[in-house]
Amino acid sequence: MSGPGDAPAPPVDAGRVLADLADLAALTGGPEGARRVCWTSEWEAARDLLRNRLAAIGIDATEVDEAGNLWARLPGADRGAPALALGSHLDSVPAGGPLDGALGVIAALGVLRAWAESDREPPRDLVLIDFADEEGSRFGRSLFGSSALAGTLDPAALRDLEDADGNAIGDVLAGHGVDLDRAPAAHERIGGIGAWLELHIEQGPVLDAAGESCAAVSGCAGVERFRLDFAGQASHAGTTPMDQRRDAGLAAAATALAVERIAREHGGVGTTGRIELEPGVITAVAGRAELSVDLRHPDADRLEAMHAAVRQAADVIAGSHSCKVSEQPVWRIAPIPFDRDLVGRAEAAVAAAGGRRTAMASGALHDAAELARVVPAAMVFAASVDGISHAREERSRDADLTAAIGAFGELTAAALAAPPR
Amino acid sequence: MSGPGDAPAPPVDAGRVLADLADLAALTGGPEGARRVCWTSEWEAARDLLRNRLAAIGIDATEVDEAGNLWARLPGADRGAPALALGSHLDSVPAGGPLDGALGVIAALGVLRAWAESDREPPRDLVLIDFADEEGSRFGRSLFGSSALAGTLDPAALRDLEDADGNAIGDVLAGHGVDLDRAPAAHERIGGIGAWLELHIEQGPVLDAAGESCAAVSGCAGVERFRLDFAGQASHAGTTPMDQRRDAGLAAAATALAVERIAREHGGVGTTGRIELEPGVITAVAGRAELSVDLRHPDADRLEAMHAAVRQAADVIAGSHSCKVSEQPVWRIAPIPFDRDLVGRAEAAVAAAGGRRTAMASGALHDAAELARVVPAAMVFAASVDGISHAREERSRDADLTAAIGAFGELTAAALAAPPR
Repeated sequence: MSGPGDAPAPPVDAGRVLADLADLAALTGGPEGARRVCWTSEWEAARDLLRNRLAAIGIDATEVDEAGNLWARLPGADRGAPALALGSHLDSVPAGGPLDGALGVIAALGVLRAWAESDREPPRDLVLIDFADEEGSRFGRSLFGSSALAGTLDPAALRDLEDADGNAIGDVLAGHGVDLDRAPAAHERIGGIGAWLELHIEQGPVLDAAGESCAAVSGCAGVERFRLDFAGQASHAGTTPMDQRRDAGLAAAATALAVERIAREHGGVGTTGRIELEPGVITAVAGRAELSVDLRHPDADRLEAMHAAVRQAADVIAGSHSCKVSEQPVWRIAPIPFDRDLVGRAEAAVAAAGGRRTAMASGALHDAAELARVVPAAMVFAASVDGISHAREERSRDADLTAAIGAFGELTAAALAAPPR
Repeated sequence: MSGPGDAPAPPVDAGRVLADLADLAALTGGPEGARRVCWTSEWEAARDLLRNRLAAIGIDATEVDEAGNLWARLPGADRGAPALALGSHLDSVPAGGPLDGALGVIAALGVLRAWAESDREPPRDLVLIDFADEEGSRFGRSLFGSSALAGTLDPAALRDLEDADGNAIGDVLAGHGVDLDRAPAAHERIGGIGAWLELHIEQGPVLDAAGESCAAVSGCAGVERFRLDFAGQASHAGTTPMDQRRDAGLAAAATALAVERIAREHGGVGTTGRIELEPGVITAVAGRAELSVDLRHPDADRLEAMHAAVRQAADVIAGSHSCKVSEQPVWRIAPIPFDRDLVGRAEAAVAAAGGRRTAMASGALHDAAELARVVPAAMVFAASVDGISHAREERSRDADLTAAIGAFGELTAAALAAPPR
């Protein structure tokens, strides 16, 4: 994959990556799952393991930026050229899996180690970044560190956040050396980054169901999250005839089915994860109902069309149950396509490793979604057994991880040999 | 309505009934609604008002049976004949309405007063019963006193009940002179009762929507209450393709719609008052869902057919979403038709008062549902404005109450003139 005239890049030792992941799981995991929630001592312990592994190959990793992201650099031949940055996040959800985030950081360590232990320098600097608080488990704000680097973090919107124990986000971050108000200053480092590559588990069932080890990722789907509030009339389950009801619960139920139908029709995904009825007792027709909706599509126009279709369906359904419906926005993010050239190289590397022929869109968000706003970016996915993630049962087959790590190594070699066009 | 050769029964003064209800509301109601929850000092205050009104017409009402039911007797000409019993319940739900239960007790007072203030004796004893704890608001067991009189109360099934503050039912009842274990002894009194008549508000919108003041009641619908538990697979809202989901929430939503359709098809009512999804977050496909179902029909065979149809629909729907479904019974009661002869007389009395021509089934349960198991029984309903009950907004138009009280008086006169066949 390297350019003509260059020696091939040193191969990544996937076995050592798997061994490092096992060591990490032994230190910060166990029968109850991963214990690497960001801004905790166990997350710091995971970082210490990473620092020790980097120190063993002569790389200093004591540098933490204003947003709490950990940086490690292996200098390349062309000191002035923008670096190729690799990584993901060591933080996990509570009782999470051993691979979500950790795979990408430890695979990046594997790439740096391959070069560090060879007798050559990489053509340009190789940078490993372990982003802070990708999961947002404690304060509900995901992609914290990567959004700071990308320049999209607004501290004012976060200042009032507290964790479940009532600790203010500012105090907790200060305890780990991060000044919330100063976090956006991490963005000043983006000029030194030429491209971003990230390996991650799929966290979904597509590759496993298809018997594919790994895939290039074409981008992250956009998300529309909102709540629909239906207002009808609570009444007695025994004394209210069917044709005199204004049942908000039935309006919500019919809308949940409409969300599914519309998602299928538009080739996206649509989910009703929560339904709440009021008064919520077995003997009463529901007078109010809340429905939460999460719509995702990699194409912005199709996502907007899905949203409009759900809104229209909810209106019609509410009317047919003599209810009113109103919409409360929760969160939205536009679809983020990855760099076309890098995605093509990722497809070639994955194909060479025996993985999926064409790139797939990611329905989940990743640090790469933030980085892709400002630098060429791409990702590789490793298959997740049964698609399970954010759970201690999360796992991937060693053979699939080995293929994915190999493809990721080839992709970094290709990106080093020729910066993205 | 009285038999040939008898003088007509003294008419009930509906205006005094309404005045007594207003006095009761002033004493134990107010802007926050009725405050007559059973086994409280405010409920006892309501009974004291009733006792005072009875004492004023020379009737002693200090007799309380083993289940806490208050009895008052106006002796009739034939001392040996079974009494005609009238009444309902003074207890209310918290923040309830002024009429639910109270109307029937105060209307029965009106009947006794009409006879007591006339210069004649009724042909047989007239008995007023104010049943204890019809609502079951504190311990979740409704129809307490009337089930004891009917012989269907099982103290062993109630012994472990506590109110929201952790007070044991046995201790609370003892504080009001009732020994829970001795409550079934109230049943010994049933032999002295020849028939039961009860006036109640409809608590539903049927009469109000039809512009009818009152109606005879043909019986109480049977009830099947159960929970359906759907088990699928929780998964990520972004990474799980629509065709690889096992969404328990969608299975529950589709079943809620099936409950409505089946109720309409069978001419009954069917309600899904509660839906709970797990994990219940906006970003996750629900792995589990609980649905509560309340089915009612006045005909036992149709009720059973409704139940079977819901069960079958839930099975088919669960299968189509790759989920499992299981059923947990909650509570059931068979339909209870009232006495045919008494219902016919109630229809005649209601028609004479300008009310609904044919009897209607009650979707709610009443003390009459327990009494009808053991003695001939019938009811009259007064129209509820907008069908609202169990709320402080509960009300009926004075004109409708006056018509209903008149019809109830005529019905008692007819039942006194000739005992039910």
